[in-house]
Amino acid sequence: MGEDTGRSQYVYRFEEGTRDMRELLGGKGANLAEMTRMGLPVPPGFTISTEASMEYRRAGRIPESLVGEIREAMESLETARGRSFGSPERPLLVSVRSGAPVSMPGMMDTILNLGLNSNTVAGLAAESGDERFALDCLRRFIQMYGNVVSGIPVGDFERILGSVRDGVGVASDYELGVGELRQVIDSYLAMYRKRMGRGFPEDPWEQLLGAVEAVFKSWDNPRAVVYRRHHGISDALGTAVNVQSMVFGNLGSGGGTGVVFTRDPATGEATLYGEYLQNAQGEDVVAGIRTPRPVEEMRDTMPEVYRDLERVARNLEVHYADVQDIEFTIEEGELFLLQTRGAKRTPAAAVRIAHDMVEEGVISREEALLRVDPEDLSVLLHPSIDLSGELDAMARGLPASPGAASGKVVFSADDAERSGSAGERVILVRPETTPDDIHGIVGAQGILTSRGGMTCHAAIVARGMGKPCVVGCGELRIDLENRKATVGSQQIQEGDLLTIDGTSGSVFRGEMDLIEPVLTRHFRTFLDWADDVRTLGVRANADTPEDAAVARDFGAEGIGLCRTEHMFMEPSRLEAVQAMIMANSTEEGTRALEAILPLQRSDFVELFRTMAGLPVTIRLLDPPLHEFLPDIDELRDELRALRAAGAGWAEMAVKEELYSRALSLQEMNPMLGLRGCRLGLTRPEIYRMQVRAIFEAMESVRSEGIEIFPEIMIPLVSDVREFRELARMVREVAEEIGGVGPHLVGTMIEVPRACVTAGEIAAEAEFFSFGTNDLTQTVFGFSRDDAEAKFMHFYLTEGILDENPFAVLDEVGVGSLIRTGIDGGRAEREGLKIGICGEHGGDPRSIDFCHRAGMDYVSCSPYRIPIARLAAARSALKSRGESREM
Amino acid sequence: MGEDTGRSQYVYRFEEGTRDMRELLGGKGANLAEMTRMGLPVPPGFTISTEASMEYRRAGRIPESLVGEIREAMESLETARGRSFGSPERPLLVSVRSGAPVSMPGMMDTILNLGLNSNTVAGLAAESGDERFALDCLRRFIQMYGNVVSGIPVGDFERILGSVRDGVGVASDYELGVGELRQVIDSYLAMYRKRMGRGFPEDPWEQLLGAVEAVFKSWDNPRAVVYRRHHGISDALGTAVNVQSMVFGNLGSGGGTGVVFTRDPATGEATLYGEYLQNAQGEDVVAGIRTPRPVEEMRDTMPEVYRDLERVARNLEVHYADVQDIEFTIEEGELFLLQTRGAKRTPAAAVRIAHDMVEEGVISREEALLRVDPEDLSVLLHPSIDLSGELDAMARGLPASPGAASGKVVFSADDAERSGSAGERVILVRPETTPDDIHGIVGAQGILTSRGGMTCHAAIVARGMGKPCVVGCGELRIDLENRKATVGSQQIQEGDLLTIDGTSGSVFRGEMDLIEPVLTRHFRTFLDWADDVRTLGVRANADTPEDAAVARDFGAEGIGLCRTEHMFMEPSRLEAVQAMIMANSTEEGTRALEAILPLQRSDFVELFRTMAGLPVTIRLLDPPLHEFLPDIDELRDELRALRAAGAGWAEMAVKEELYSRALSLQEMNPMLGLRGCRLGLTRPEIYRMQVRAIFEAMESVRSEGIEIFPEIMIPLVSDVREFRELARMVREVAEEIGGVGPHLVGTMIEVPRACVTAGEIAAEAEFFSFGTNDLTQTVFGFSRDDAEAKFMHFYLTEGILDENPFAVLDEVGVGSLIRTGIDGGRAEREGLKIGICGEHGGDPRSIDFCHRAGMDYVSCSPYRIPIARLAAARSALKSRGESREM
Repeated sequence: MGEDTGRSQYVYRFEEGTRDMRELLGGKGANLAEMTRMGLPVPPGFTISTEASMEYRRAGRIPESLVGEIREAMESLETARGRSFGSPERPLLVSVRSGAPVSMPGMMDTILNLGLNSNTVAGLAAESGDERFALDCLRRFIQMYGNVVSGIPVGDFERILGSVRDGVGVASDYELGVGELRQVIDSYLAMYRKRMGRGFPEDPWEQLLGAVEAVFKSWDNPRAVVYRRHHGISDALGTAVNVQSMVFGNLGSGGGTGVVFTRDPATGEATLYGEYLQNAQGEDVVAGIRTPRPVEEMRDTMPEVYRDLERVARNLEVHYADVQDIEFTIEEGELFLLQTRGAKRTPAAAVRIAHDMVEEGVISREEALLRVDPEDLSVLLHPSIDLSGELDAMARGLPASPGAASGKVVFSADDAERSGSAGERVILVRPETTPDDIHGIVGAQGILTSRGGMTCHAAIVARGMGKPCVVGCGELRIDLENRKATVGSQQIQEGDLLTIDGTSGSVFRGEMDLIEPVLTRHFRTFLDWADDVRTLGVRANADTPEDAAVARDFGAEGIGLCRTEHMFMEPSRLEAVQAMIMANSTEEGTRALEAILPLQRSDFVELFRTMAGLPVTIRLLDPPLHEFLPDIDELRDELRALRAAGAGWAEMAVKEELYSRALSLQEMNPMLGLRGCRLGLTRPEIYRMQVRAIFEAMESVRSEGIEIFPEIMIPLVSDVREFRELARMVREVAEEIGGVGPHLVGTMIEVPRACVTAGEIAAEAEFFSFGTNDLTQTVFGFSRDDAEAKFMHFYLTEGILDENPFAVLDEVGVGSLIRTGIDGGRAEREGLKIGICGEHGGDPRSIDFCHRAGMDYVSCSPYRIPIARLAAARSALKSRGESREM
Repeated sequence: MGEDTGRSQYVYRFEEGTRDMRELLGGKGANLAEMTRMGLPVPPGFTISTEASMEYRRAGRIPESLVGEIREAMESLETARGRSFGSPERPLLVSVRSGAPVSMPGMMDTILNLGLNSNTVAGLAAESGDERFALDCLRRFIQMYGNVVSGIPVGDFERILGSVRDGVGVASDYELGVGELRQVIDSYLAMYRKRMGRGFPEDPWEQLLGAVEAVFKSWDNPRAVVYRRHHGISDALGTAVNVQSMVFGNLGSGGGTGVVFTRDPATGEATLYGEYLQNAQGEDVVAGIRTPRPVEEMRDTMPEVYRDLERVARNLEVHYADVQDIEFTIEEGELFLLQTRGAKRTPAAAVRIAHDMVEEGVISREEALLRVDPEDLSVLLHPSIDLSGELDAMARGLPASPGAASGKVVFSADDAERSGSAGERVILVRPETTPDDIHGIVGAQGILTSRGGMTCHAAIVARGMGKPCVVGCGELRIDLENRKATVGSQQIQEGDLLTIDGTSGSVFRGEMDLIEPVLTRHFRTFLDWADDVRTLGVRANADTPEDAAVARDFGAEGIGLCRTEHMFMEPSRLEAVQAMIMANSTEEGTRALEAILPLQRSDFVELFRTMAGLPVTIRLLDPPLHEFLPDIDELRDELRALRAAGAGWAEMAVKEELYSRALSLQEMNPMLGLRGCRLGLTRPEIYRMQVRAIFEAMESVRSEGIEIFPEIMIPLVSDVREFRELARMVREVAEEIGGVGPHLVGTMIEVPRACVTAGEIAAEAEFFSFGTNDLTQTVFGFSRDDAEAKFMHFYLTEGILDENPFAVLDEVGVGSLIRTGIDGGRAEREGLKIGICGEHGGDPRSIDFCHRAGMDYVSCSPYRIPIARLAAARSALKSRGESREM
């Protein structure tokens, strides 16, 4: 345009645009143009382009040429509508609305009925045969314009309106008569003059240009600026302005207004869904005096219009190949469309719609997959709080394990177990949990702790069980002794009802309505399509046969991380585990472990049966041994109490030995201490027992005809020699047993040195699995627990980090080292099997990185498997698209 | 050789070799050959090459051709000496000695007098005119051969000898007469036959080949194999065998034997130093019956020989351009040299000798620098234990701060301060130390703790003060209440004398003799030469003016790390610091810090005066705030006690608030927690105060005419945005003050993410300093405290790691990330100033890495500055050499 004529075209009549001109015309304008081009009934109008707003921003005033273009366009409008702007007879009235390429809050709102003044209002009155209606339109226009364009607070108008209402003794504006409205309008105009030092613009052209300028200005209002900053939207996009001739839905019972979705946005069902009000303007809906009716009632009240609406809706949906959210007005029996846009929908609806539209042949399977945000699936996989109710969280903690749960508050694991087995729903509330509390976690519906981070005991165990959990809720002060807690001035007594939402970290008083998850037929089919497309494998982090069964049902293709420590934490085994810890030699330790071997073996047998035919990656014991001992402060207190009670020598000696061992196992930084392969090397009897249990379990299920592919994983390797030593031990055990089936021995890559020396490690290791939780901790030098409790919130709100790197993989830092690791590993061992088993394995953006980095699979919580399947498919589609573009 | 003739030459007469043939002839053989070529009086002989031993090893038997070559060589010997092997008249006797290219323990010892048997002994008797002497030679030969070659335990021979001694009632073998010796010999031979099932080899040729084979075999004896594994010496080197005709120093008073150093190996003084015995063989010295005399007495007793010896010594020293350790024998007035080798020397001597030999024009300055191992200098810079005494450590801990100290044991900081100011020498013994103990550390001669690692409070403070310190001495059980400690069954009472050696980690009972360090003129000159050569700058890690003064005296070119936390830990400031920590808002914190600002400013003024004209890198506060609060367990106990004593409400409230704040500051992994720039960002008032103190101090010294170049260092940056935010704050403070002098703002690179994103960071940071302590922790995922207390020892002894990566920089892992950081940083900002300030900055091997990686400077403890200067010079020489070779 501009290049040929030497100046830009700023104004586009609806007939000139298409939906692809979103950047120039804004979303609203582009869709109005598209609908016009489709021949749908759109009140005529035009769009002032985003370029005009950018020119305004640059120059600080409305471009000269724009005024001329607007005048031309208005003339066309007058002709089209057979009306005249500013004329007291058949006056042309318009609406003015902002419409940026990306919708954002804070931009200027709609101004309706522009063109009204003391002259034209008479024309409107005559035409509608309703003077009251016309005056009310004028009153509202003055108020809206005065507020939005001239910046006069709404309260100033409301005060005038209120005093007139009081004067005649009515409660609602609708009850004001013609006389009162005139009185209101006069007072408005007087107040306007007083506030602004000049009269209200009577000239419709002045009104129009003022409104356009107000839209331009609103681009830089603080709320819009902050929103753009936060969402990374460029300031240079600018906003368009839509000027459209008014239609009136309130000129009698043949009129009306409404909003319709082309399908049910809550369920996805293929039926028109919406509301309308007969003989009304949009504002009446907002005012809340009259209750809108379901749109299907139009079938009876205005059958023809309803048929039109059905046809238009179907037409738009197919045209846009997506569910639409349509605003319409019926003027004297004639349907007009004021807006169409892609409909917001619930995750359940998103899946159903994507599925159905494929079945209907409207979109391809690939398009369907790109229509659903994987993260949104989460609510379909966990119970969630019904968002339709009033939500007022009493406290907020870390969202440690997603899903919502309600129940009575209990303050001890024993109580939770008791109530749980009695069929009561309870929430276990503790300062933090320890292995001694497992039975309570099993018994409770959800867990709430005042301390701990995303990797604390409660968080890990709850995630493993798929049980809702909120941790690190610092506002919560727990008084265990008196079995109560407080949040600020609010008290929580034992037995009070509480609801926790582990998806958001919120805690609510009382029992909220929960929505239970269902894996519908549509959902399953949809995920099957994802499987057809994706190249990345999806496995589960699962420690128990129960987890594994859920994972398999959700489509896991194996287990990518079986954490064996949970097998050690079972209450029935803790005694033997503690005896092992107290052992003073490898021999003593081995003897203590003999009690655990058969139990661990049967754990694996169960797990292998569940995962028949699939690979199962088993991580040898990882956490420091002190995690299996009682809390050291509690031990000290117990000792003190025993001493005070004059306990006998023998009793004291046992406790003191336990205390002294716990003391000697204490560490400054347990995350970086004696754990993982360091533990395996210094206490070789532990890994030896575990490997024996794995191989014996494998033999056992093979004898039942079940094939299984164990992948033994050595954690926390920083030097190939650690791995070499332990891999040799695995081979030794295999030889001792003899005839062991096919298996792999590999390692978890979770410290930077393993990434840097990946070549050396790959010379010996048969697979890599990136443990990105610990890798993120070491690459940043962040202790996850401490960071999330102490400064992560600050970092995110101050914009020092864009994302919590424990939630979304940090591609720049951690990702760079992962790529180093993958390159090094595959250079040494072609086709090295590589996966990820940190929690990032369930995060769509992180999964996309894993796909691009060339990993073989991701592994995540069973409850995120469907999310991972979809995310992996979308990544595959994205890279297909990119490779096509190249 | 082998290539032309089709077979190898295995035997080399001394005349055929040179000192460069060490690999073929072994060290001893090459030197014997060299001396022979120099025309020095060496008893004639030959060397069987290492290739022969390797051939023996391969084939499992002595190569056929070797036997022939030995016969030929022996014939030459017979001719040269006018003697005949195995003949009863003028019998040729030889010694057989191993001699590998690298000397190692476990190899076969010398066999003397080979060729003796019941026939030839008569010839020896006749020649020497001393039958007793000849028989004693035979007895010793049988014993030595029987033991070394035939493997009969020495005890079996000693028992026979003892019973004969007892029979005649004498105490010493020297008192046995001819008859008794014959009796011994007969019994030896009978026992030999009984043990071996065959007679002792009478045939000298059989003796000779047996001895040669025994040398070959000793290459693979377990001690030698372990030694080679440990030192990375190839098994394929093999050993040579030296066969040399015997000379006798015990054929009358014109004979003798001795060892001489060409300079004093203890002091380096240029004077012959050694011992000799007149009329004796080497064995007599070993037997310890007669006491050797200082070699200078030969000036009187054998003036001509002494002159010969002086001439030969000078000759050899110049020829080898190094101090020699020479073995000699005088046979009837004639001097024979049996061996020469480079002399072992003390570090003090090494420096003096290197210096003097340059002055004498024997070696170049560069050669001198390559002669002294930088690590050896350490003992010259700290008091050390006199190694000439008996050393029996009672316990061992971690060598936290080098140097030795003796004193009376005290168990509290107050006692240490009291005794210290009273002029008493005390050792402060504590489970661990806290900031509250600083006055005690100042007062004590040395510090010993039972807990903690190399970076615990005691270790850091002591290293900063250059005060000996041993930490983590787990064997030590301290009973503070009763003011005593135990190590196993040994008790240590208050007031007992103790010596600690912070260089080795040893703890000794009693007061050991200590050697105080002196920086001699030679040493200073030597270090000046190092400065001329090196390209790497050397700075000091110094926090106080005292440290800085030491550093400057030792040659520091600036401060590379001034840790400001020690300024916070001063007892007089702790109250204000704690008030700041207890503050509930930035404003409250700022007010509390107002009390600290003038103190911190005057710290910097002092420091800047000391470092006038030089750069000073100041790290803003790094440790987590809880380090400045009392221990949480102590606080809890105090609270308990107060409660039990019925303390008043107000008193309780203060303590409880302190306890609750300490509790809220507790962290799971403080090393990865709220510290460094994370602290600076969340508590901005702290850095703001520090930066103000720095700038104001700078202004203050500039007004005195002192130039200073502060480099403000932001610690623990993992993302450029952390740095950007804080650098902005520094600029703001500079603007507030106005007219601030030249300074830099840079960062410490100490987490892997900073290495990986170094380019982004360098776009904003004006210098990098690698904090390799924390970087090593994060790259390995090792908590230093926990690793050194729990598994580092195991890793090193099991060979999982070759070196403690906290002592020697891990080039493969940590170094690789450092290179990534340097490349990234310099790609973005050409010539970016880069240094290292972790403790590795004082380790020679790590310094060599820093040199190769292209850093600008290293920074280390003041007491390691001379080591760093020398190490840097050697690295520069090495890379010069390498670039010449290219």
